[in-house]
Amino acid sequence: MVVRTSSSPSTAAEALSALRNAPPLVQCITNAVVTNFTANALLALGASPAMCDIPGEAGMFAGVAGGVLVNLGTPTAEQREAAREAVAVGTPWVLDPVAVGALPVRTALAHELLEAGPAIVRGNASEILALAGAGAGGRGVDSTDTPDAALDAARALAVRTGGTVAVSGAVDLIVDADRTARVPGGSDLLTRVTGGGCALGAAMAALLPGAAPFDAAVTASAIWAVASERAAAVAAGPGSFAVAFLDALAAIDPADLDGRVAA
Amino acid sequence: MVVRTSSSPSTAAEALSALRNAPPLVQCITNAVVTNFTANALLALGASPAMCDIPGEAGMFAGVAGGVLVNLGTPTAEQREAAREAVAVGTPWVLDPVAVGALPVRTALAHELLEAGPAIVRGNASEILALAGAGAGGRGVDSTDTPDAALDAARALAVRTGGTVAVSGAVDLIVDADRTARVPGGSDLLTRVTGGGCALGAAMAALLPGAAPFDAAVTASAIWAVASERAAAVAAGPGSFAVAFLDALAAIDPADLDGRVAA
Amino acid sequence: MVVRTSSSPSTAAEALSALRNAPPLVQCITNAVVTNFTANALLALGASPAMCDIPGEAGMFAGVAGGVLVNLGTPTAEQREAAREAVAVGTPWVLDPVAVGALPVRTALAHELLEAGPAIVRGNASEILALAGAGAGGRGVDSTDTPDAALDAARALAVRTGGTVAVSGAVDLIVDADRTARVPGGSDLLTRVTGGGCALGAAMAALLPGAAPFDAAVTASAIWAVASERAAAVAAGPGSFAVAFLDALAAIDPADLDGRVAA
Repeated sequence: MVVRTSSSPSTAAEALSALRNAPPLVQCITNAVVTNFTANALLALGASPAMCDIPGEAGMFAGVAGGVLVNLGTPTAEQREAAREAVAVGTPWVLDPVAVGALPVRTALAHELLEAGPAIVRGNASEILALAGAGAGGRGVDSTDTPDAALDAARALAVRTGGTVAVSGAVDLIVDADRTARVPGGSDLLTRVTGGGCALGAAMAALLPGAAPFDAAVTASAIWAVASERAAAVAAGPGSFAVAFLDALAAIDPADLDGRVAA
Repeated sequence: MVVRTSSSPSTAAEALSALRNAPPLVQCITNAVVTNFTANALLALGASPAMCDIPGEAGMFAGVAGGVLVNLGTPTAEQREAAREAVAVGTPWVLDPVAVGALPVRTALAHELLEAGPAIVRGNASEILALAGAGAGGRGVDSTDTPDAALDAARALAVRTGGTVAVSGAVDLIVDADRTARVPGGSDLLTRVTGGGCALGAAMAALLPGAAPFDAAVTASAIWAVASERAAAVAAGPGSFAVAFLDALAAIDPADLDGRVAA
Repeated sequence: MVVRTSSSPSTAAEALSALRNAPPLVQCITNAVVTNFTANALLALGASPAMCDIPGEAGMFAGVAGGVLVNLGTPTAEQREAAREAVAVGTPWVLDPVAVGALPVRTALAHELLEAGPAIVRGNASEILALAGAGAGGRGVDSTDTPDAALDAARALAVRTGGTVAVSGAVDLIVDADRTARVPGGSDLLTRVTGGGCALGAAMAALLPGAAPFDAAVTASAIWAVASERAAAVAAGPGSFAVAFLDALAAIDPADLDGRVAA
């Protein structure tokens, strides 16, 4: 398999510029813990979030949104039905299979939704391994594996979906069928704020209207790395980090993303 | 139609003083994205929030609350039933018809609830136009119209409900059957924080026990304008703005509202 | 009845050290208003939160968690079923009977769950009085009684469950069948942030894997007192207090708890 180099730095800058120039409507069907932080992260970044997760509305709304996020963190019966509606309409979408593997309701749903072809699957290494059938899943929302340990599983999953797979960790790993990118940097403090990864998936969905899935995933990861570092530089702890992270998302400039992506 | 001038500045100060002197219990049936921010805004302001949205409890709790908010942002089946219970008991209540118009479940519910006579309807211009039957609704939670474009629709809606209609925007517009007030000021940063408008509706509900609906709506809008300006003056971005906004709500003094309301 | 003195100061320090040395997985079935703040408080403290409240998963997840929280603030039908599953598996758990007493759905559930023997019951005085059958409940989430007014009720409840009962207030009161501890200090600002008490219950659950229930309850209360005081010292209002409180939870050292517990 020929592994091409990552998307160029300018691709990331262009993807963020596209979002800022045409603020996308992003429909998020996401878990109860992170709805607020996810919406605020999207607003800070320049996108327009909506959380329409009611059966009978979710599919309709997905049709007018530019990108859709389906996050399986707390999948109530209504959310499961809403997710099925939303992925059926053809808008590019991101699957975040939170804690997939050991827990049967979300695991069954994740495999069902996977057939609808997510543009991007984003998770931690344990989740990607479990979804690809190569592991048993981590400890709930925590990964017990590193992104590179999930490289083969991520590639296999990408081949299967025809899309991109993003594995979050100390160095984010993004793959599609024949490309690999790594995004280093960021801050450990992001792991002390709930929803840091969930909101990253939402940011990927926000970039889908203006960028190819691989580039959207790489760009969102680079944005997260830059914003995390800037927030950590001024934070006194995880509380002030979360606040500064939102400020940093709003202040980030496309040029700030240059040089953040490695092959 | 005779359009009287707005409520006097001292009316707003008196309404806030009444809230502070007798902290109201405010029942909020609201969307999953903004429950936390709404409760914190009410606590900061000096009210006592509760979010009792379970069928079999919601009506009972509305009966002991001083004001009720029904926000249709994420109306699950249980919330829809709880909302019906809550508006039936006679406590003055605020309807926030989030994204009404294009989405069928909430639109049907909004029209049904409207028959129960909300003391205040609060929304953006697109929502008010849609609810009054004069527009197709905005782009989800975003308004694509200005408040003054919704003046006639707001007046018609106020005549129909016998209550007050508040249209949020760069200059807030508050009308009832024969009065009009405008509240300028505030900060664009409030539109970068999810729930800024939703929490405004909750603040209106908190003021209902101590003020007439028109005055409650005007006062809450004036409080929002003052607190937004003060928060913007110290904020580095939308994250720190939200934090400073809550601080400002707690610090605001009734006298700060003088001169904030225009006819 | 012989009332022994409180747990020693070093017990609290040891309990926090145990949490930091072996970060526990804490499953929280909690209300929609405070999920985010609760998860962030647990992360700041050093624990690993998960909010798995779906029937068919909740019991399974409780089996691998080190501690479980069941908070009845917004008990949807699915959450009620999930709570029943979670308390049946034998992992030590904390019951937070929010607003029990006047509201029938949660009151019935609280009494049913009580039979499963919570390691800790945490509530305000009105809630403890109501749950023990000695009062009619407070005004929603607000207590209208002081902790010491609930001492006898708390003791009776502790005898009945065989566990610990923690009554939150200006001075926290913790009792089991034959011991009593009081934790003074803290800050009134904590009552201006939604979820301060709910997250305290979660912290108690996080300490259960490494400490006996009585010590876990005392330690969490001492942590809350120290963190609240430090946050209040730097806060400009309730917004910045909540942020500083999370920072303080992350920075707190076991030795900071010495001398915070009275008999």
